[in-house]
Amino acid sequence: MDSTVSGAPEPKGIRKHLSNLLIGRPLETRTLAHQVVSNKIGLAVFASDALSSTAYATEEILVILALTGTVAYLGLALPIALAIAALLVIVTISYRQTIFAYPNGGGAYIVARDNLGELAAQIAGAALLTDYILTVAVSISSGVAQIISAFPDLTPWRVPMAVAIIGLVTIVNLRGVKESGAVFSVPTYFFLGMMFLTLIVGFYRWATGTLGVVTGVEFAVEAAAPLTMFLVLRAFSSGSAALTGIEAISNGITAFREPRSRNAAKTLVVMSTLLVTMFLGITFLSRHIQAIPSHQETIISQMARTVFGAGSLFYLLLIAGTALILLMAANTSYADFPRLAALHAGDGFLPRQLTYRGGRLVFSWGIMTLAIAASVLVIFMRASTTALIPLYAIGVFLSFTVSQTGMVVRLRKIGRLKPGEVVKGLETNLEYDPHWRLHMIISAFGAVCTFVVMMIFAITKFTSGAWFILLLIPTLVFVFFRIHYHYKDVAQALSLENTAVNEIETDRVITMLLVDGVHKGTLQMVKFAKSMGNPWHAVHVGVNQEKTAVTQAKWDRYVGEGQLVIIDSPYRHLLAPIRQYVIDLLENNPGAIVHIVMGHLAMDSLMSQALHQNSSLILNLGLTGLERVVVTIVPLQIHQNGGEVNRNMLTGKDLKKARGERSIKN
Amino acid sequence: MDSTVSGAPEPKGIRKHLSNLLIGRPLETRTLAHQVVSNKIGLAVFASDALSSTAYATEEILVILALTGTVAYLGLALPIALAIAALLVIVTISYRQTIFAYPNGGGAYIVARDNLGELAAQIAGAALLTDYILTVAVSISSGVAQIISAFPDLTPWRVPMAVAIIGLVTIVNLRGVKESGAVFSVPTYFFLGMMFLTLIVGFYRWATGTLGVVTGVEFAVEAAAPLTMFLVLRAFSSGSAALTGIEAISNGITAFREPRSRNAAKTLVVMSTLLVTMFLGITFLSRHIQAIPSHQETIISQMARTVFGAGSLFYLLLIAGTALILLMAANTSYADFPRLAALHAGDGFLPRQLTYRGGRLVFSWGIMTLAIAASVLVIFMRASTTALIPLYAIGVFLSFTVSQTGMVVRLRKIGRLKPGEVVKGLETNLEYDPHWRLHMIISAFGAVCTFVVMMIFAITKFTSGAWFILLLIPTLVFVFFRIHYHYKDVAQALSLENTAVNEIETDRVITMLLVDGVHKGTLQMVKFAKSMGNPWHAVHVGVNQEKTAVTQAKWDRYVGEGQLVIIDSPYRHLLAPIRQYVIDLLENNPGAIVHIVMGHLAMDSLMSQALHQNSSLILNLGLTGLERVVVTIVPLQIHQNGGEVNRNMLTGKDLKKARGERSIKN
Repeated sequence: MDSTVSGAPEPKGIRKHLSNLLIGRPLETRTLAHQVVSNKIGLAVFASDALSSTAYATEEILVILALTGTVAYLGLALPIALAIAALLVIVTISYRQTIFAYPNGGGAYIVARDNLGELAAQIAGAALLTDYILTVAVSISSGVAQIISAFPDLTPWRVPMAVAIIGLVTIVNLRGVKESGAVFSVPTYFFLGMMFLTLIVGFYRWATGTLGVVTGVEFAVEAAAPLTMFLVLRAFSSGSAALTGIEAISNGITAFREPRSRNAAKTLVVMSTLLVTMFLGITFLSRHIQAIPSHQETIISQMARTVFGAGSLFYLLLIAGTALILLMAANTSYADFPRLAALHAGDGFLPRQLTYRGGRLVFSWGIMTLAIAASVLVIFMRASTTALIPLYAIGVFLSFTVSQTGMVVRLRKIGRLKPGEVVKGLETNLEYDPHWRLHMIISAFGAVCTFVVMMIFAITKFTSGAWFILLLIPTLVFVFFRIHYHYKDVAQALSLENTAVNEIETDRVITMLLVDGVHKGTLQMVKFAKSMGNPWHAVHVGVNQEKTAVTQAKWDRYVGEGQLVIIDSPYRHLLAPIRQYVIDLLENNPGAIVHIVMGHLAMDSLMSQALHQNSSLILNLGLTGLERVVVTIVPLQIHQNGGEVNRNMLTGKDLKKARGERSIKN
Repeated sequence: MDSTVSGAPEPKGIRKHLSNLLIGRPLETRTLAHQVVSNKIGLAVFASDALSSTAYATEEILVILALTGTVAYLGLALPIALAIAALLVIVTISYRQTIFAYPNGGGAYIVARDNLGELAAQIAGAALLTDYILTVAVSISSGVAQIISAFPDLTPWRVPMAVAIIGLVTIVNLRGVKESGAVFSVPTYFFLGMMFLTLIVGFYRWATGTLGVVTGVEFAVEAAAPLTMFLVLRAFSSGSAALTGIEAISNGITAFREPRSRNAAKTLVVMSTLLVTMFLGITFLSRHIQAIPSHQETIISQMARTVFGAGSLFYLLLIAGTALILLMAANTSYADFPRLAALHAGDGFLPRQLTYRGGRLVFSWGIMTLAIAASVLVIFMRASTTALIPLYAIGVFLSFTVSQTGMVVRLRKIGRLKPGEVVKGLETNLEYDPHWRLHMIISAFGAVCTFVVMMIFAITKFTSGAWFILLLIPTLVFVFFRIHYHYKDVAQALSLENTAVNEIETDRVITMLLVDGVHKGTLQMVKFAKSMGNPWHAVHVGVNQEKTAVTQAKWDRYVGEGQLVIIDSPYRHLLAPIRQYVIDLLENNPGAIVHIVMGHLAMDSLMSQALHQNSSLILNLGLTGLERVVVTIVPLQIHQNGGEVNRNMLTGKDLKKARGERSIKN
């Protein structure tokens, strides 16, 4: 049984109520098409990651420039920010092209698979999956850090708080993207409102000459490095963290309303405009108030303090909004990771379970995988943003590069078409486009830029953690291909090609009963074996001489038919002697099927079940590894109602007999 | 299958080698009698807990007396220590009586069960089991604290170190008590040697007038309480922690060589003598050097420093020995907890698995239970001795009280015998004893003393953690009885009393095949069903309309016989619709047995297995809960050798056919 549906047992009773309360009532498969979101909610769902990066991108540039040991070079932040904004515009235009070219979802994975082949697709996918996990870990850790700087008493709860927030975001996402969008749009729009209010008031005060400068911040000089081109590039690459998350919309096109591409493209442009405006605005204002990278206070806090005054309501609201958006940024990964993992799984590069939709039609396995991986990372790194940041963003820029390279290949193919010609492609059709050359130059330029940024990332951050990602991504790709070959092999093994039709032959079946002691359950096994009408015998593994003698005596008395074979087991093993016996049977009876029948005491509750050895489950696992072996479990139901046992045998007659006994005894 | 042997699959290949390296080669059951230890090793195994308490007992008395806020009353430590020593002598004499009365193990549990009934036995056992877990947690935590005070750099590794040491002790104990005794006797004797050397040198210098006084220690005054009788009693009860562990030998008599009782009694007397000597010696010397309870330095350290000089080799060796004995004290619990748990389990008050002897003939389940419970406690309490100490020792004194009360009851019975009379008892015979009245007075006096100490413990430590133990012990007793009633109920349900002999009837069997898709595994199921020769039909759960159509078409083509029933499942559930179908079948066919056959793809490795849905395992669990239902699993072996798949069908002929296909394809 290897199917494409959820095989988990449905929750019952109180578990069902709890599940409904937390996750919501199950949804029917046919409601799938309705699980789409409006542009406004789409912006909140897919943009929080990208928008939240404005909270630290300017600061990252200033931190690197401050390595020169002087505030003189901090002014370079503005030209660097302008260059990053230009890169962002190029990537936006490039990804807008992708959204129209791939209306069913145009993430780096699909574009690479369509144009560059399986290997490139797996590389892009592995890079993105890694970065989605890191996004959750980084943004929740830094959001918690913001909360802790406001409430230092919470310091010892850093890791539990981060894990609890991951749990909360996970539950909301298990309810489905529509609800999670509605929940998460409030903080996203709150952050946007507060940030634009700050920028508008700041610019107004700057224009009217009433904007002061920051006071009371110490300049954190750690080393005095010369200002080199390398340092400027490093500052540029650090600031490029602002671009992370921009690919989210192209991956999630199918979550938008029809016309999907147009709605997704609109949302992308709105998001990039907001991002560029905020990023440049913050960088510009921070220079004019002479903000300084410092260990004590973030740039955002310095800016808000100067614009509104320390401790003012608006100051607190902006800080709260910034903390919130960082926590919400994790939600973007919750929208994208499961979709991308399902794509990999659908192509057979990740466990197939990732394609199953849970009760609420979301990819529950993907959500849980993301939650567990991010929690492990947060626990392992003690929720330290400093430790996580060097691992971050390499994957995103690798996927940018692969995706745009794929678009270049696609546009070259389109360039070879005649006017009006349409060629059927793997994912979407290739249509003639008179502007193909311009589009191709944009994609190629974007690919080169993002590749350079990725290389700078990898080189400048190598020793502080990037090496791990540079090892992890090839390892993941290797594992993905191993999984792929596994599924291909299994599919080939199961294939019925060249199999004769309607020619299933029968063979001799040797039935053996595994007998531990002789009790009501044993009689049921014998009853089943007799009812099946095939020849059978019984086997007992002798661990304890006294017990073996009792078993033999009881067998003779209560069963009185069929052979009882005793196997000795001096090392108290159960499985090994049975395995050997079955192997001998198979060798002495070539072609025959060995049918092993074992009893199982089935209890009402897991707690009761745990009080019994449950060796049938273990033996079952150990014996199904043998060829030409079939295992049957004959359960005996043990019901307990407040210390009272009703046991029902296979027939109602026995049940009545049993009840009769009890009423006589009581 | 519910047997008294280990049902875990035997390790294979590299796992087997690793297991042999860590745990040792498996031992045959008949070698069980040889797993006993000499008195010297028995002392090391069972006494390290009791002896290690000298490392803190004196200090505990001084800490309480220091609450008066003046050093003037610290001199009371000596009379209090003498009173505790007297109590220890009484308990030793009382337990020596018990060892001779119960040569097969005379722990509080057995004595209580034999004389006071099941409830008292379960109370004593629950108290002791709780205290054994606490002994491991407390002694390893305080040992780690000793190491950390010597090497403060290790502070952040406190919890991992404690857990790692628990792991190490667990592995040594899984090898068996003989080896663990040999390993642990070295540090025990090293501690004894160093402590007696310190005491002898100290007394010599005191006698020759060359022993100085402690300098440089601050008196830690936290509050100034008046010296009341209550405070003196509290100091007495705190110092009575020296008695914890004294019961270990009486529980573990069976680990001694024959004559067991004599050897165990000798070892008990030696242990108590060492304990009293060290405890009084330390208390006496600590008063003469004017040692003061302090946050900076332990009493043992102050004594060693004064006797040998700070930083001297002997000073360091005594501190190292003290740290080691504290770590080793945990080992005593590893010898006793599994034995006691097995006693409970043997009487059906704890899961029966605790009676299974593992490959090395030790009670592996008990050892693992202790290790996990102690690790959880250490992790939860952050390895803080201060947090754990208030939970400690109540259980031990409760068990002392119960055990000695039991002996009083026993001796009263003996008192009623005529000279020379022998009455057969439950555990051991009752023999006439002319000195029964003296013995009874000793036991009764011991019981009263330990009861008073326990009450003082409970009252003075109630708010700082003792409440938890006072809640936990009744809860455990309740759970133990629940388990007991469960086993009794099941035994009654399985009982064949009043069952007719040799009269097993047969019934109609309805065979249904669960079909997911149609592939080689499906054909095997059909083959098995046909070979069994009973009527059968197939059932498919339709989650996806396309897939259902494909399945129906393939069924018609490749099977072409038997009915294929399609059940619709709009919520993508698998188990629920099948359950309902089976329930309907059972209702429409009263008395019939429903035989469900399902396929299972059996992979070579767990990793490969995890890539498949394994719904047969889940369905199996979900369906064995129904009455009159039997489940058969037909595995299809999938072997992968470096990306290559060999698949063997139930018959060699199919195998050859499959190989033929491959050779044509390649």
